[in-house]
Amino acid sequence: MGSTFGKLFQVTTFGESHGVALGCIIENCPAGLEISEEEIQIELDRRRPGQSRITTPRKEADKVSILSGTFEGKTIGAPILLVVHNENANPKDYIDFKDIYRPSHADYTYDARYGYRSYLGGARSSARATIGIVAAGAIAQKILRLKAGIYIAAYVSQVKNLKLDKDFILPSISELREIAEQNDVRCPDAELAARIVRLIQDTRQAGDSVGGIVELWCSNVPAGLGDPVFDKLDADLAKLLMAIPAVKGVEIGSGFSGIELTGTEHNDLFYSREGKIHTRTNNSGGIQGGISNGEPIFARIAFKPTATVMQPQMTVNDRGEEVPLKVKGRHDPCVVPRAVPIVEAAAALVLCDHYLRYLTANFHRVPEIQ
Amino acid sequence: MGSTFGKLFQVTTFGESHGVALGCIIENCPAGLEISEEEIQIELDRRRPGQSRITTPRKEADKVSILSGTFEGKTIGAPILLVVHNENANPKDYIDFKDIYRPSHADYTYDARYGYRSYLGGARSSARATIGIVAAGAIAQKILRLKAGIYIAAYVSQVKNLKLDKDFILPSISELREIAEQNDVRCPDAELAARIVRLIQDTRQAGDSVGGIVELWCSNVPAGLGDPVFDKLDADLAKLLMAIPAVKGVEIGSGFSGIELTGTEHNDLFYSREGKIHTRTNNSGGIQGGISNGEPIFARIAFKPTATVMQPQMTVNDRGEEVPLKVKGRHDPCVVPRAVPIVEAAAALVLCDHYLRYLTANFHRVPEIQ
Amino acid sequence: MGSTFGKLFQVTTFGESHGVALGCIIENCPAGLEISEEEIQIELDRRRPGQSRITTPRKEADKVSILSGTFEGKTIGAPILLVVHNENANPKDYIDFKDIYRPSHADYTYDARYGYRSYLGGARSSARATIGIVAAGAIAQKILRLKAGIYIAAYVSQVKNLKLDKDFILPSISELREIAEQNDVRCPDAELAARIVRLIQDTRQAGDSVGGIVELWCSNVPAGLGDPVFDKLDADLAKLLMAIPAVKGVEIGSGFSGIELTGTEHNDLFYSREGKIHTRTNNSGGIQGGISNGEPIFARIAFKPTATVMQPQMTVNDRGEEVPLKVKGRHDPCVVPRAVPIVEAAAALVLCDHYLRYLTANFHRVPEIQ
Amino acid sequence: MGSTFGKLFQVTTFGESHGVALGCIIENCPAGLEISEEEIQIELDRRRPGQSRITTPRKEADKVSILSGTFEGKTIGAPILLVVHNENANPKDYIDFKDIYRPSHADYTYDARYGYRSYLGGARSSARATIGIVAAGAIAQKILRLKAGIYIAAYVSQVKNLKLDKDFILPSISELREIAEQNDVRCPDAELAARIVRLIQDTRQAGDSVGGIVELWCSNVPAGLGDPVFDKLDADLAKLLMAIPAVKGVEIGSGFSGIELTGTEHNDLFYSREGKIHTRTNNSGGIQGGISNGEPIFARIAFKPTATVMQPQMTVNDRGEEVPLKVKGRHDPCVVPRAVPIVEAAAALVLCDHYLRYLTANFHRVPEIQ
Repeated sequence: MGSTFGKLFQVTTFGESHGVALGCIIENCPAGLEISEEEIQIELDRRRPGQSRITTPRKEADKVSILSGTFEGKTIGAPILLVVHNENANPKDYIDFKDIYRPSHADYTYDARYGYRSYLGGARSSARATIGIVAAGAIAQKILRLKAGIYIAAYVSQVKNLKLDKDFILPSISELREIAEQNDVRCPDAELAARIVRLIQDTRQAGDSVGGIVELWCSNVPAGLGDPVFDKLDADLAKLLMAIPAVKGVEIGSGFSGIELTGTEHNDLFYSREGKIHTRTNNSGGIQGGISNGEPIFARIAFKPTATVMQPQMTVNDRGEEVPLKVKGRHDPCVVPRAVPIVEAAAALVLCDHYLRYLTANFHRVPEIQ
Repeated sequence: MGSTFGKLFQVTTFGESHGVALGCIIENCPAGLEISEEEIQIELDRRRPGQSRITTPRKEADKVSILSGTFEGKTIGAPILLVVHNENANPKDYIDFKDIYRPSHADYTYDARYGYRSYLGGARSSARATIGIVAAGAIAQKILRLKAGIYIAAYVSQVKNLKLDKDFILPSISELREIAEQNDVRCPDAELAARIVRLIQDTRQAGDSVGGIVELWCSNVPAGLGDPVFDKLDADLAKLLMAIPAVKGVEIGSGFSGIELTGTEHNDLFYSREGKIHTRTNNSGGIQGGISNGEPIFARIAFKPTATVMQPQMTVNDRGEEVPLKVKGRHDPCVVPRAVPIVEAAAALVLCDHYLRYLTANFHRVPEIQ
Repeated sequence: MGSTFGKLFQVTTFGESHGVALGCIIENCPAGLEISEEEIQIELDRRRPGQSRITTPRKEADKVSILSGTFEGKTIGAPILLVVHNENANPKDYIDFKDIYRPSHADYTYDARYGYRSYLGGARSSARATIGIVAAGAIAQKILRLKAGIYIAAYVSQVKNLKLDKDFILPSISELREIAEQNDVRCPDAELAARIVRLIQDTRQAGDSVGGIVELWCSNVPAGLGDPVFDKLDADLAKLLMAIPAVKGVEIGSGFSGIELTGTEHNDLFYSREGKIHTRTNNSGGIQGGISNGEPIFARIAFKPTATVMQPQMTVNDRGEEVPLKVKGRHDPCVVPRAVPIVEAAAALVLCDHYLRYLTANFHRVPEIQ
Repeated sequence: MGSTFGKLFQVTTFGESHGVALGCIIENCPAGLEISEEEIQIELDRRRPGQSRITTPRKEADKVSILSGTFEGKTIGAPILLVVHNENANPKDYIDFKDIYRPSHADYTYDARYGYRSYLGGARSSARATIGIVAAGAIAQKILRLKAGIYIAAYVSQVKNLKLDKDFILPSISELREIAEQNDVRCPDAELAARIVRLIQDTRQAGDSVGGIVELWCSNVPAGLGDPVFDKLDADLAKLLMAIPAVKGVEIGSGFSGIELTGTEHNDLFYSREGKIHTRTNNSGGIQGGISNGEPIFARIAFKPTATVMQPQMTVNDRGEEVPLKVKGRHDPCVVPRAVPIVEAAAALVLCDHYLRYLTANFHRVPEIQ
């Protein structure tokens, strides 16, 4: 049950790092929507390994196929199965430490939970399991764009101690993604990006790893999305963002920095512009009482440094014996740049589910059927 | 659907600030558990208004009744209905601004979503809607304590800029709650608590409000709780904590501070002690790959300053006209102390659901039935 | 989890026969709908005991209260809590056989499942637990009527061997309920009803019980409701009808009688009338491929004779010892007449859930939001 | 959402008759269970077309592959993806009537619901969509067998007017399946089977079709499975059985025949045998109050005659014009023999879900975790 998200736009992901295939099923996607493998592939390509000099050299085309749920290029209301086959799995990288619990990985916890695990590259706990999120997210983003003009853009704002200057002026949300895509870091400040590239290369050289922050904006989100009291829009965003591997913190709007303000400083005052209600500030991050208020949604997501480091570490094996560990394999010294499309996809799954949920919230909006 | 949480231990809350009653239904609570109104009341009393000089003067006994699901003091496997009647509702405090959208409240967003709202004290968006969470959390905590010795304790670590000293030595988790309860702030440092009381009183005097941070510890959580890939233990915790009114940020373990470390610094090295696997550090906050690892779970939760302030503010009404607002009513200048039992209850709902989910994770643990 | 039905119009029932209260919570009911206790009471009055000379003499007003989810007579999008307090519970009727398993009741199975049970009047397994279904069904029927003109009517077509003549001409569906309500049996044939009344009275005299058949019609159901492959409209109807106490069989359309026909005899041929597609026969019972086709929905539901009989029976107690049982208490010798409003309510819950689900089935029907 | 069944053992089916592939995902299957493609294939082979002279000549190997969720032959707690590729799809059989609504098929209702449909062989409404049910059912049956010795067997008891003699003595449930498998009809009476074969062949000759009845037995079901008040064991069985294409009626235990008995005749009296509680009769069909009582579960399922007939029929096209229809394609004149493994699989999905649900029903059965 833990691999399914959404009450109307329902996504179940499947697959392991070194299994046969990964992907997702989308249940309850409205019928009559044109979708193509090509448009899903665009998002998967932004996520796939080996895309630049600062990511893992593992070569995976991550080619997606639509195996069900469409006819002549359109959805038919049936579950949509999206499948990506693993190609470059390298089991022998893992055999040497098949009984060893890698520090800050999920080896030990999977054994504790399931009593049995695949030791190949993290299997289900691998970041490759986000392939299904990114694939489903591509369709979710298309629905949001077509129905409401919603635009989602994330970018890297910090890696280790290198961060966007407070005075750095962000491009508009509609240009953000394109600008961030212009460098391997996915950082809108090209100069900072260059410094981050050097930091990541030095980190790799040192056999170490670094983390960072991804920032997320969603524009044109109509007011009214979100479902009190548990499925608040910010609560569901927090859940899906925290579910991305390596995430340790999520802020909406002012986040942790808001606590040093007083209420009169922090409150977002309403005003009217061209017949529409806006707020003068956006400490709320576009969400009030768990429901979108029409302002851009803003979140910050903290990624810890990758758990896989090339330096030797002491750990234990599955018999509790202390043993040294020297990892092989092909790994990202910093996952944050590749996390950008995952963050966007995760946000899209939340927004798309709540978009569909919105339609039955108001009795007078529910259409009559004759 | 948004008012229900949990796939096995399922809690649906109901009720509005100025409606007839609030509370919750618990579905699928195991039969044969002794529960009493008294033990639920203890938790509700920690949440209720008017409990100290620094909270709202609204007087509500918040007396709970069990209306179904038990027989002779024990659960019978049927839905448990817990009801608290509103007593001191004061509708006339709200009539003057029934068509006005209070800044950083949910008035506007509820109208946008539902097309119709109760203007009385925030109605469903009020923090009174957490009564159901706290009531259900009391039962969840009992189950966790009886079955696994899990102990959950939260406390205030910061209000505005007044925070626990980095060198402050916390009591053990099992004593934390009792020590924190010794002052109105629920802060384990009595001296800091006294300063915070003065800050809150000054803030009330100024017609303003302040926010802060609650920290959460859960001890004795067995390794193995949490369900990849969406219902990770940290993801579900982030969701339920973010769903608490006024929360704008959630960190697990090292959170945002972990991003300035390298992987070799941040990794929690495993070792063995008395036949059990532990980690030397706990940057993971007790959760790895979305599953508990047996170390204490640690989270930090940021609460914005209360939206209700007594100073006049400019805002708009439901016709988009700009109007001044001068709030009446009885309000907390700082919700953080009263949020402590809500944070504990929210964590308990997540852990109890995952405790029950754990039982079917492993085929060999699933008992045979003859 | 078993007490909740519906994915969009979600109903959770609660309460036991001799507990404090019974009722339901409705989650995700659209906001802005006018509802009143009076209109819910009308349906509860059709279900309540003591309504006629052929039902149990237990006196219960079954007075419903709305405790949450409305403001000024309209729904606000929050969970709606409907509560009926038990008044005439008679625990001492049950104390004598508190450890005895009544034949064909749920005493033994509840003990087997839960290890602990309330022995009072069947507790959660009592037909009183249908109060929540009938209460929620009243609201569901209102939504269906207002949005699509759907009209649901059930009636008794058979009690024991007394059945409607094959040539009996039913009134139109829109008049069916009113006509059936004109006698205590809820049978559209007044003459047959009179014979059934005598049969039931004779049966009561003999300390025995009888069963029968309820037939259900739903008219004006728009084509397109139902969700393949598990949540087919007929599958969900079968589930909810089978969930009514004492039901042992459900047929849709031709049911068991259809199997003696060939395909060419059984197929419902399409034709066009006034620009709308119809079928010349209705062996499908208004549902094809799990989706409504615009023809009236028709189902037949078999109720076994009530398990409670006044004649002595041999049975066992909870220690497995064989013991004689002589039941006291106030019971219906035939539940079928009182089952009519329950059948209608159950059908309404299914149709209302699927009505809301229909809205997102088609991409071009999903409205744009600006 | 309609393609998913189960709250603990969760099965989502996907695929269309003439799409790329069909199958299912199983979520929350316990880890550590050995499963193989071979054992799933056995069940699929019993369902596949072309298996005997009385089924459709469409040739499909229906070869299953496990694409995720296992490692070294054992489940790992991750979603299990089972895929069967379509091989012998024949789109040109359908192009001639791509805009025509076949009588008693789902063409019209799918168009009404989704606004867009695949016209190829019924697509999602085809009985090929039961491949996922049968595949998942193979795993469910294995779990039930290993954990509780539950044995599920179905067989054909009637085709059109040819039915098992009332005096026919059934083999024991454990032998039932093997005996029924000895003829193409899957009828335990070989002589009757021979007559049914001739009837089906004559029916095919006449371009017509016939329906029939499948009977289902489940033995060794422990007392205590089933979850009041909606998810009763009989209610969930009724749902999943009614969801099988062509089913129009479901009876549990005495079903419709029970209504002519009185309560004293119908009640199943308890007695004790070797320390275990039994009933002397089994009119309840193994389920009382929605919960299994330890007696064999018995159900009867009515299948209408197949909608596809080779004789010409009048119908309408998607513009509402009346047109003659002459179907081509490869079809079963009687689906009932091939429905037998589908019925068994559907029952297994219900029982397996409820088996896992049983584990948390009783507080004292919930294990402690240290």
